Amino acid sequence: MILFCMDERSGVSKSSQIVEQIRNMISSGVLRAGERIPSSRKMADILQVHRSTVSSAYQDLWALGYLEMRSGAVPLVRERFPVVSRKGSSNESTIDWASFSSPSTEELWSDYSLARGRRPAGENLPGGTISFVPFRMDKRLFMLKSFRTCLTRSFREEGANLLSYGDVMGYGPLRETIANRMAAHGMDSHSDEILVTNGAQHALDLVLRMMSAPGRSVAIEVPGYSQMIPLLRHHGLEIVEIPMKDDGMDLDLLEETCRVKPPHLVYTMPNFQNPTGITTDQPHRERLLSLCSHYGVTILEDGFEEEMKYSGKVVMPIKSMDSENRVIYCGTFSKVLFPGLRIGWIGAHRDCISRLSALRRFGELSPPSLLQAALQRFCADGHYERHVSSMHRIYRRRMQSALAAMQRYLPAGRVGWTKPRGGYLVWLTMSTPPRTILWDDFFVQAGVDLCHGEEFFPGSPSRKHFRMSISCLDEDEIEEGVRRLGLALRQIYGHETAAS
Amino acid sequence: MILFCMDERSGVSKSSQIVEQIRNMISSGVLRAGERIPSSRKMADILQVHRSTVSSAYQDLWALGYLEMRSGAVPLVRERFPVVSRKGSSNESTIDWASFSSPSTEELWSDYSLARGRRPAGENLPGGTISFVPFRMDKRLFMLKSFRTCLTRSFREEGANLLSYGDVMGYGPLRETIANRMAAHGMDSHSDEILVTNGAQHALDLVLRMMSAPGRSVAIEVPGYSQMIPLLRHHGLEIVEIPMKDDGMDLDLLEETCRVKPPHLVYTMPNFQNPTGITTDQPHRERLLSLCSHYGVTILEDGFEEEMKYSGKVVMPIKSMDSENRVIYCGTFSKVLFPGLRIGWIGAHRDCISRLSALRRFGELSPPSLLQAALQRFCADGHYERHVSSMHRIYRRRMQSALAAMQRYLPAGRVGWTKPRGGYLVWLTMSTPPRTILWDDFFVQAGVDLCHGEEFFPGSPSRKHFRMSISCLDEDEIEEGVRRLGLALRQIYGHETAAS
Repeated sequence: MILFCMDERSGVSKSSQIVEQIRNMISSGVLRAGERIPSSRKMADILQVHRSTVSSAYQDLWALGYLEMRSGAVPLVRERFPVVSRKGSSNESTIDWASFSSPSTEELWSDYSLARGRRPAGENLPGGTISFVPFRMDKRLFMLKSFRTCLTRSFREEGANLLSYGDVMGYGPLRETIANRMAAHGMDSHSDEILVTNGAQHALDLVLRMMSAPGRSVAIEVPGYSQMIPLLRHHGLEIVEIPMKDDGMDLDLLEETCRVKPPHLVYTMPNFQNPTGITTDQPHRERLLSLCSHYGVTILEDGFEEEMKYSGKVVMPIKSMDSENRVIYCGTFSKVLFPGLRIGWIGAHRDCISRLSALRRFGELSPPSLLQAALQRFCADGHYERHVSSMHRIYRRRMQSALAAMQRYLPAGRVGWTKPRGGYLVWLTMSTPPRTILWDDFFVQAGVDLCHGEEFFPGSPSRKHFRMSISCLDEDEIEEGVRRLGLALRQIYGHETAAS
Repeated sequence: MILFCMDERSGVSKSSQIVEQIRNMISSGVLRAGERIPSSRKMADILQVHRSTVSSAYQDLWALGYLEMRSGAVPLVRERFPVVSRKGSSNESTIDWASFSSPSTEELWSDYSLARGRRPAGENLPGGTISFVPFRMDKRLFMLKSFRTCLTRSFREEGANLLSYGDVMGYGPLRETIANRMAAHGMDSHSDEILVTNGAQHALDLVLRMMSAPGRSVAIEVPGYSQMIPLLRHHGLEIVEIPMKDDGMDLDLLEETCRVKPPHLVYTMPNFQNPTGITTDQPHRERLLSLCSHYGVTILEDGFEEEMKYSGKVVMPIKSMDSENRVIYCGTFSKVLFPGLRIGWIGAHRDCISRLSALRRFGELSPPSLLQAALQRFCADGHYERHVSSMHRIYRRRMQSALAAMQRYLPAGRVGWTKPRGGYLVWLTMSTPPRTILWDDFFVQAGVDLCHGEEFFPGSPSRKHFRMSISCLDEDEIEEGVRRLGLALRQIYGHETAAS
């Protein structure tokens, strides 16, 4: 006979209580392997509970490996090997994980730990602080309802297929949709020339992984995308720094570099570059392409905000002029729709895509299809284009507000800034302050927060910069944030330098 | 005045027709930059369509970068840079992608191309063929309805958060759920010691990536998981082959190897090993652990089918005895629930998890949260345990059917097979056939298909093997498939050798 104690008021379901008690009896040796347990009918009688409650508990115990069940017979306690040499839970490891991991992983890990150690955006800041740090979509602008409808419909119509293994290159219809989007931006592309990735970062990682070999180098814009720098180092690729000028990467210097030793790859963000917000013009793009063509260099074009060209002239992607198929283009839905979908892509010649697909295949088999199918439907039903239009309207006004407020509030002689034609980023360049400044202290006091420029340089920048992101702030917040920034800067540089 | 031609019967929406015609007029130079377009009201009058149709078309054209629109004014054609030096779409690339990619990528790619070149499962086979090749969940057993409910509820309750950037380690509540599942299998684990991955393959790739450095080696079971072999080579890791015996990896040989030069890592699949279906017993696991402890070797335990222990004694994972925290455990939901979720995990000491998280961070930022949240709810609501129970019931019977049919139909003296205690795989070992055999021809003729054993060996096996997966077949299909296999084998080995 087994002694049970059911607690009606514990809030734990009766079924779970049965599971827990039998587990404990087996673990403590009260019940031994081969012993018989009352049938579910009998147990239900004893405990005065419904028989289905007991059946469900027995099923759980069976799944957990505690009971042996055969139809028509009472359950038996299963034989389990005793757990030996288990000294109890320990937080220590005899493995030295720093030595187990490779030197290049250790380097990446220390960059990661460093980044996490920095004051995280929005945390530890006084309430009411206006932060220009977060660079991600504004959740308040998410088109949740339409997306949910698309998701539900995709699930209903092809749920079983979408939850099975998918295409390593990505869901076919989505690749067609992406090819069409690329065509709208002037790029000829076929769905076979597209690899859907887990966001743009994954695209960059795959390309670097594909080409990583000793002695190879990559030319990057400096300042440039901060997540790229540790990744290049991790892949053992030499970094060739090409400074950003007002109109984009310094092509004279790139040409000089190529003359000496052409890099293996040039990485560029032609639209609203992160962090500067600079967009290169058509002649710049043409020259970059022709220069790379001359020296046999491959281009990695990061079109992460291709869709966010909301003012001024539309400049076509470098890939649109690429008659030689030397450009590897990558794009993403993260910076205009939902970052949490983790859907980006690479568009390149099929010989390149086929190699990248092999890396993806052995790296994770295939991407999840369900979210891709929902996204494809979202695009096909016209929601995506409507969303892009509305984002243009909203962010054009936000950016105008930001630039107008900067003009009004910032001490013009002391700080310069870029005037982006799209995207979410403005880059601030400070003149040398009169003394050593603890910037964060001033900003915290003023109730505003910015991203320090240092993280966008592989080495140390010669001047002080800040990146200002307006992605998560509305017009009022931007205006007020810039006003506070102006106050802080006047404290630093002295009142007499306030804008006229 | 613009000439429009609306086609009522084309099946193309009026709005799309307007978009297309204006685009063509701009592209062909009929409309030039700065030109005015009729207001949507006027255009609607001209075309005799609803004004909202025109508005929608104009919005699309604006999003595509063709029109400039300001409130209260008529739209203008935007200035676009002409696309230069575009020689039209070309399928050729001046980049030699084989040289652009690294030697290790080329090797992986050729393995991939080779694998794709093999007769793909189910394709090119006569209709009605019973295939023991596919090794994935049976779609007929998917619990779609409950999962859809969980997905919908998760979306309703926290859609905006789930579609924003998520936790690099994985959705917190899911990590807790996984820690609880691990506890049910005797493994102490905390959610901070778990990294959610994009399936088990991604887990393997991350671990190899973490440790990959020149001169390092990994001991693997041979035959073993086929996707692991090219991955090890790609990461530049030396492969130490340890043969599988009837009771698992040959530990005498492993010990000998360790005495000479311990590998950096031992990779093992203790349950229903792929491809042999062999489960190691407790003493084998203890000896492997103590041996690795003695020689300071890290263990990578692939528990990909931990949940599928549906008959015989329950053997606890090696990780459950790991008081030294030297085991890196990986698991997955792919082989028991939905492979298309692409959700697996790594459970290891936090110093190890922290490094793997850094790799994930720079490799793809974070995994998509929505599917993880739905899965967490699916588990929390008890659907997962019910599903596992039902899978046990179904596959225990399927496996029993398979083994009984093999006993009945296969020529016993000519073919041996393993008797798995769970999972989906049976491993066949053939005696030397009387002459050179084109196996596939015999199988196609008999209407059955199996997976050749060669792909599970880094080199050439000394005997002919086949892997038989029962994952996608019901009992009748299994019985009939084995009967056909018996027919084919009798043709090969001669009728006189049929089972008695």
